[in-house]
Amino acid sequence: MFYHDRELQYKVRVDNPNPVFARMLQQAIGGIEGEIRVCLQYMFQAWGARGPAKYRNMLLETGTEEMAHIEMLATAVALNLEGAPVSMQDEFAKDKMVGAIMGGMDPRHILSSGMAAMAVDANGVPFNGSWVVGSGNLAADMYANVMAESTGRVLATRLWEATDDAGMKDMLAFLIARDTMHQNQWLAVIEELGGLNAHPIPNSFPQSQEVQDFSYAFVSTYVGNQETIAGRWAAGPSLDGKGEFRVEKAAPLGGEPKLAAPDPRGHAQTEQMNGEGMIDQAAHKLASIS
Amino acid sequence: MFYHDRELQYKVRVDNPNPVFARMLQQAIGGIEGEIRVCLQYMFQAWGARGPAKYRNMLLETGTEEMAHIEMLATAVALNLEGAPVSMQDEFAKDKMVGAIMGGMDPRHILSSGMAAMAVDANGVPFNGSWVVGSGNLAADMYANVMAESTGRVLATRLWEATDDAGMKDMLAFLIARDTMHQNQWLAVIEELGGLNAHPIPNSFPQSQEVQDFSYAFVSTYVGNQETIAGRWAAGPSLDGKGEFRVEKAAPLGGEPKLAAPDPRGHAQTEQMNGEGMIDQAAHKLASIS
Amino acid sequence: MFYHDRELQYKVRVDNPNPVFARMLQQAIGGIEGEIRVCLQYMFQAWGARGPAKYRNMLLETGTEEMAHIEMLATAVALNLEGAPVSMQDEFAKDKMVGAIMGGMDPRHILSSGMAAMAVDANGVPFNGSWVVGSGNLAADMYANVMAESTGRVLATRLWEATDDAGMKDMLAFLIARDTMHQNQWLAVIEELGGLNAHPIPNSFPQSQEVQDFSYAFVSTYVGNQETIAGRWAAGPSLDGKGEFRVEKAAPLGGEPKLAAPDPRGHAQTEQMNGEGMIDQAAHKLASIS
Amino acid sequence: MFYHDRELQYKVRVDNPNPVFARMLQQAIGGIEGEIRVCLQYMFQAWGARGPAKYRNMLLETGTEEMAHIEMLATAVALNLEGAPVSMQDEFAKDKMVGAIMGGMDPRHILSSGMAAMAVDANGVPFNGSWVVGSGNLAADMYANVMAESTGRVLATRLWEATDDAGMKDMLAFLIARDTMHQNQWLAVIEELGGLNAHPIPNSFPQSQEVQDFSYAFVSTYVGNQETIAGRWAAGPSLDGKGEFRVEKAAPLGGEPKLAAPDPRGHAQTEQMNGEGMIDQAAHKLASIS
Amino acid sequence: MFYHDRELQYKVRVDNPNPVFARMLQQAIGGIEGEIRVCLQYMFQAWGARGPAKYRNMLLETGTEEMAHIEMLATAVALNLEGAPVSMQDEFAKDKMVGAIMGGMDPRHILSSGMAAMAVDANGVPFNGSWVVGSGNLAADMYANVMAESTGRVLATRLWEATDDAGMKDMLAFLIARDTMHQNQWLAVIEELGGLNAHPIPNSFPQSQEVQDFSYAFVSTYVGNQETIAGRWAAGPSLDGKGEFRVEKAAPLGGEPKLAAPDPRGHAQTEQMNGEGMIDQAAHKLASIS
Amino acid sequence: MFYHDRELQYKVRVDNPNPVFARMLQQAIGGIEGEIRVCLQYMFQAWGARGPAKYRNMLLETGTEEMAHIEMLATAVALNLEGAPVSMQDEFAKDKMVGAIMGGMDPRHILSSGMAAMAVDANGVPFNGSWVVGSGNLAADMYANVMAESTGRVLATRLWEATDDAGMKDMLAFLIARDTMHQNQWLAVIEELGGLNAHPIPNSFPQSQEVQDFSYAFVSTYVGNQETIAGRWAAGPSLDGKGEFRVEKAAPLGGEPKLAAPDPRGHAQTEQMNGEGMIDQAAHKLASIS
Repeated sequence: MFYHDRELQYKVRVDNPNPVFARMLQQAIGGIEGEIRVCLQYMFQAWGARGPAKYRNMLLETGTEEMAHIEMLATAVALNLEGAPVSMQDEFAKDKMVGAIMGGMDPRHILSSGMAAMAVDANGVPFNGSWVVGSGNLAADMYANVMAESTGRVLATRLWEATDDAGMKDMLAFLIARDTMHQNQWLAVIEELGGLNAHPIPNSFPQSQEVQDFSYAFVSTYVGNQETIAGRWAAGPSLDGKGEFRVEKAAPLGGEPKLAAPDPRGHAQTEQMNGEGMIDQAAHKLASIS
Repeated sequence: MFYHDRELQYKVRVDNPNPVFARMLQQAIGGIEGEIRVCLQYMFQAWGARGPAKYRNMLLETGTEEMAHIEMLATAVALNLEGAPVSMQDEFAKDKMVGAIMGGMDPRHILSSGMAAMAVDANGVPFNGSWVVGSGNLAADMYANVMAESTGRVLATRLWEATDDAGMKDMLAFLIARDTMHQNQWLAVIEELGGLNAHPIPNSFPQSQEVQDFSYAFVSTYVGNQETIAGRWAAGPSLDGKGEFRVEKAAPLGGEPKLAAPDPRGHAQTEQMNGEGMIDQAAHKLASIS
Repeated sequence: MFYHDRELQYKVRVDNPNPVFARMLQQAIGGIEGEIRVCLQYMFQAWGARGPAKYRNMLLETGTEEMAHIEMLATAVALNLEGAPVSMQDEFAKDKMVGAIMGGMDPRHILSSGMAAMAVDANGVPFNGSWVVGSGNLAADMYANVMAESTGRVLATRLWEATDDAGMKDMLAFLIARDTMHQNQWLAVIEELGGLNAHPIPNSFPQSQEVQDFSYAFVSTYVGNQETIAGRWAAGPSLDGKGEFRVEKAAPLGGEPKLAAPDPRGHAQTEQMNGEGMIDQAAHKLASIS
Repeated sequence: MFYHDRELQYKVRVDNPNPVFARMLQQAIGGIEGEIRVCLQYMFQAWGARGPAKYRNMLLETGTEEMAHIEMLATAVALNLEGAPVSMQDEFAKDKMVGAIMGGMDPRHILSSGMAAMAVDANGVPFNGSWVVGSGNLAADMYANVMAESTGRVLATRLWEATDDAGMKDMLAFLIARDTMHQNQWLAVIEELGGLNAHPIPNSFPQSQEVQDFSYAFVSTYVGNQETIAGRWAAGPSLDGKGEFRVEKAAPLGGEPKLAAPDPRGHAQTEQMNGEGMIDQAAHKLASIS
Repeated sequence: MFYHDRELQYKVRVDNPNPVFARMLQQAIGGIEGEIRVCLQYMFQAWGARGPAKYRNMLLETGTEEMAHIEMLATAVALNLEGAPVSMQDEFAKDKMVGAIMGGMDPRHILSSGMAAMAVDANGVPFNGSWVVGSGNLAADMYANVMAESTGRVLATRLWEATDDAGMKDMLAFLIARDTMHQNQWLAVIEELGGLNAHPIPNSFPQSQEVQDFSYAFVSTYVGNQETIAGRWAAGPSLDGKGEFRVEKAAPLGGEPKLAAPDPRGHAQTEQMNGEGMIDQAAHKLASIS
Repeated sequence: MFYHDRELQYKVRVDNPNPVFARMLQQAIGGIEGEIRVCLQYMFQAWGARGPAKYRNMLLETGTEEMAHIEMLATAVALNLEGAPVSMQDEFAKDKMVGAIMGGMDPRHILSSGMAAMAVDANGVPFNGSWVVGSGNLAADMYANVMAESTGRVLATRLWEATDDAGMKDMLAFLIARDTMHQNQWLAVIEELGGLNAHPIPNSFPQSQEVQDFSYAFVSTYVGNQETIAGRWAAGPSLDGKGEFRVEKAAPLGGEPKLAAPDPRGHAQTEQMNGEGMIDQAAHKLASIS
């Protein structure tokens, strides 16, 4: 369960409120690279953790920290919206820049939230629960977490570049540092799980059951004449240490698919049912599982 | 640009059609771990690739292959739907298992697609373009790709467990092998980029600008009395080789946030505006950027 | 069933078309506070009404009126888009304000609808059917309706502030008046249902079945040292007249959750299955309901 | 900022795991009536609170508590999934009830989460950030909160009815009690704001600016011959104490709307542009704001 | 504006309530082929109609009729849910078929709506406003309408096949008839617009501006050796009467795309910026429009 | 299966990069009228094709071509973003037009994609798989395709009008030409299926089963006094050649719907259950299918 303080984890100061930057910050709140996603992702991974309890405990720690980051960013949005234009009445006519600001800000900051943050991204697209990844496989989840913290840190550095507000730069410099830690933290779990040897993920599926001819083949679909620039993936031992890379030209092994004619009760067009080829009545028997 | 063959990349055979398994296969088509996502993800990463052309070229190869995987799975869905029940008229009364099948299958396979695959997941939730990650940072994108192929391979092994249809098991064994390769492939790029040393991602942001006190600190929000089980992330050199892990108790450094009173034109409740604390008129001046 | 007139319920006049305001008006059409939502919400509540027929009849009345409000707003959007810029060819270069307008308007008004309203909000996010609340509990639904008309009226007053077009102000003043009525209307039903005594909603669940120790306790999760400002919710009789408010410090009563080890067929990472603690095989027996 | 314990707020016990009930519980996690919604809703209202600080402080308390409720429910989902069927291989043939269970459970609990909760509703529809309401008007927000706790308590009582698992019934009885408190809590704020006199919300908009003829009129769109059953909303003083209810037959006051002909650059069909009525060239002048 | 009757447009009778069929009917309410979509689509096309008023008037008529169809279907859903199982307590154990029904019905009909229709499809996916098509081009919109009524009629016939309830079959037979009319109605407008000669849509764009070499060429991307089965689209006059069909092998005319190196402030990985090829500084000048 | 070339199908040249136009182009990539939709729509129709193989083969051809169109547009977006402003630091202050550009561009092009295309529309709303229509009825699908190519060509001509960049105009002129062909192509299939005689779609449902009184009646819901402007749909033979149009005033044939009282276990408000009319206990018997 959870507790709270009224203070913020780190200081949030806005020297020059900028409603266009408020909109940009929304990406770090409700966007796919944002803090609601990592908060819920670590929480759901913790709540569904099966296996060693230390990972559950650790995921709870960082999920809880991320909630504080949403709070910081939501505060930053509200502070950037102080004094934002709310009307086209006079300002638009008087000062052309106000028009640019009203155009560039999220109109729902004026209309829907009363100058406060929302659970949406920089385009007002709502946060979506499908982004919360918890697969039940710890290694897969750690990659999901490294990925979230990598795209998240890229986002934070771009926000840092976009503003010259000293307060905002400081807050972002803190969040960038936390993303540095969190990348390392999830990588540390991968190391505990064997590092590159943890692959292929999941490692609990017997590779003997794969169609092993294709387990380490780079399939090339390229039909042109240019030289292929060699890469690490084209030759040499595979990264997981369990195979040897090679290149193979794509070629069809599966033949042409053939579906039965439509079931008359599905009301395809009559011409579809009388077309070339007879209806395979046998196909309409109920599947053998029944 | 692109070309096609009429044949499939690998054979798709269904010995005993099962409409409930058809629904499960939809997860591998239109789900967040599915093939539409990786197809478009690799394509968009290729089309937006800035930097060495070899990565663009390679992403195009695998994006094109994934399109063939969607095709295989869509064919598998259609074949599993051959002969599926379409009516509750007689079957429901006659055979209770038909009821279970109709309950367990996607009703839109009957109603909307005429016994064919759709661009949705196993619950009929449509594919969502937000899942297509291409950040412009190659290392971040490679982690997004490893993650996609890891959760994708976990999904494929679970589908393999869920069926005893020999044809379906064979098709899935092929897809599982391809996921093995693709995990290795994206890891190979990460190796080319420096492996763990590529971190923190992005590596083009000067770490001196971070709030470095927090770059390698595990922040603990735990208020209880139990022992914390040590992990690799609590001490020792950080994985990126650029710091030393340590543990720090969470503590508020940011003070209590204070927002200005509501702008009267935003029509908060009157009581909010007359509450404790006066309205800071200064806050309503337009931001200095105007 | 339904009928129509070609005339509008109230006059819609735009003196000075403003495509940026057209975008703002979309919030009142396809936004969560908008008219499509209340129209469908009252309709679905009516169509599913179980109990006294008078509520069904009344809901149909106001649902039908709301359809006329969508029509008024859609007309207002179209009129605000008359003469809007459609091209960056010359205007952008000639007149910087056109750039601000094109930036501030919804580009889909140019590209997708041909200068007409769409079923989306002010950010182009489509109307979403999940917003249509009809719970089958009349009191809960009335609160959903008061809430919709309250956020709706807040929105309308903000739109009124945002424009100085006399025609638009007049139309909005009409819609604001209707929201006044509708708030009162739904409150009138709550009064008929007992007012505050209708709580806790649903009142048909026997409170003796609740864990009554917690029915009127304000649980405080605050760990800091500051004084808690007293509120009406901290002491005195509860609003529903059925209990006495008190404050209680949050404390864990539930122990640490323990999940069984992963089912091997779910392909967690091997290390998860061999971790601390053995797999509880018993947990893998099928649930007793089977 | 936030802290956590490893223990749950209240005990979560599942005597007989039931994967179909696990799916139902998802509605209370990721559904519109669920706990993620109220958690984020109270948090965002707190973070954007303008006006008396006591409301901000109180919202933080309950938002933090709701996070613990998500945790309880997520744990309940995982426990109900222990031992759930993962394969159609043998079970489906052996035991018809397994078929019904696999049909009735969320297939993504098998395929995507490895038998754990997800941020989705009972149909697998992802949580959507648009449900997080924070308008900046305290009274409107309190109604949003009463509504959320009312539909939430209705949901919890239905879950209570749906199960006969003693552990689950106990957990739900606790959550039902908390919903009782939270309804009362938000009503207490409304009382502090003036109760019914707080209406019409927002009360900071001068009613003299409304089209007051329509502020307390019940508009009837009914064209039939039956008697209208009288209701509290048809006559007598309005609930807000500021007007007198009356009934008025719907009648069009707005005339027929007339839009200008399409701008040729918007490429309507030629016949639309040459139709009855000439193109009003004047309408294509740029709006006066430019 | 709009009016209503309390009676239904056509009788809705359910002889044997079936909650699984209730779920199926949801597709015709809130699905992409459903009645909310056509209702709003015709309404929005009417409200944005530019050009001859007769089309606006006609669209209003049928949009209003569709609202009555939503009402009929919503009533049918509620009637099919009468007496549906709400609990797994005893029924599941007693009667296996109840398990199949609870598995096959929408759990939100129990949990969220109290046995009434919702604005969702057969999988509980909410209605989405993006489906409401109104392009401002009358011919394009008429095709959108024919398409909606065609997929809608296919859906209705499949629902008709799925049930043997005489009341439901009668209601669907009415809706199928209306879809027949509506298909004809939109085709009648296309005839007025010139029928096939209305193409290519929009006909107001001068075809001389197209890259006319490709206006009537069937581009074949097929790389295999099989014979191509001839179709009407391969040779002969084009359907719009303005060209001659021919077949052309796909071939790249566009060269390899080359993007500039990443802007350093976008924080790509350092290796991307130092890769093969220098950064084209010129590309970082601001676009000439500024 | 599929292959690729590194070259584009047609040249993509941007003379003057314009980030606002980049945002507009997104509509043609990830919008409902865009190329991802048609690509996947033709592919899914091919993969689920039942009936004559020639249609499957042809759909594959054009689906594959559309993938090349996404590629062209994604390249165009990236090129239009070269040199776009990424910071408000200095530019906003120095040059007001930069403010307008930053306001008018998609902030996620800066923040999320690093100046590259995304799978979203012009408002950043993600591509949605629900737009991919494949009904299993060939004629319905062809109308879906004509509609997609009609709204798509309208969009492309509007983009053509919006820019004066010669390179962009040339690329769009190519895409417009392809839309011309594709409209003709799908119309050619409709001709093969019988043209207007293919209606009503589906033609495999016996019209004798419709409620034929309403198959060719234009139902008028208009209650006003004005003259109705005659249209082709009001009289004369129906377009499908199977009936005669006539006009009929809307009138209710279905009586007032009556739902049973709420099931007590669904926890409606007590007052709903004790209202006018007794609870019809009979309605609570389980449906006869059980």
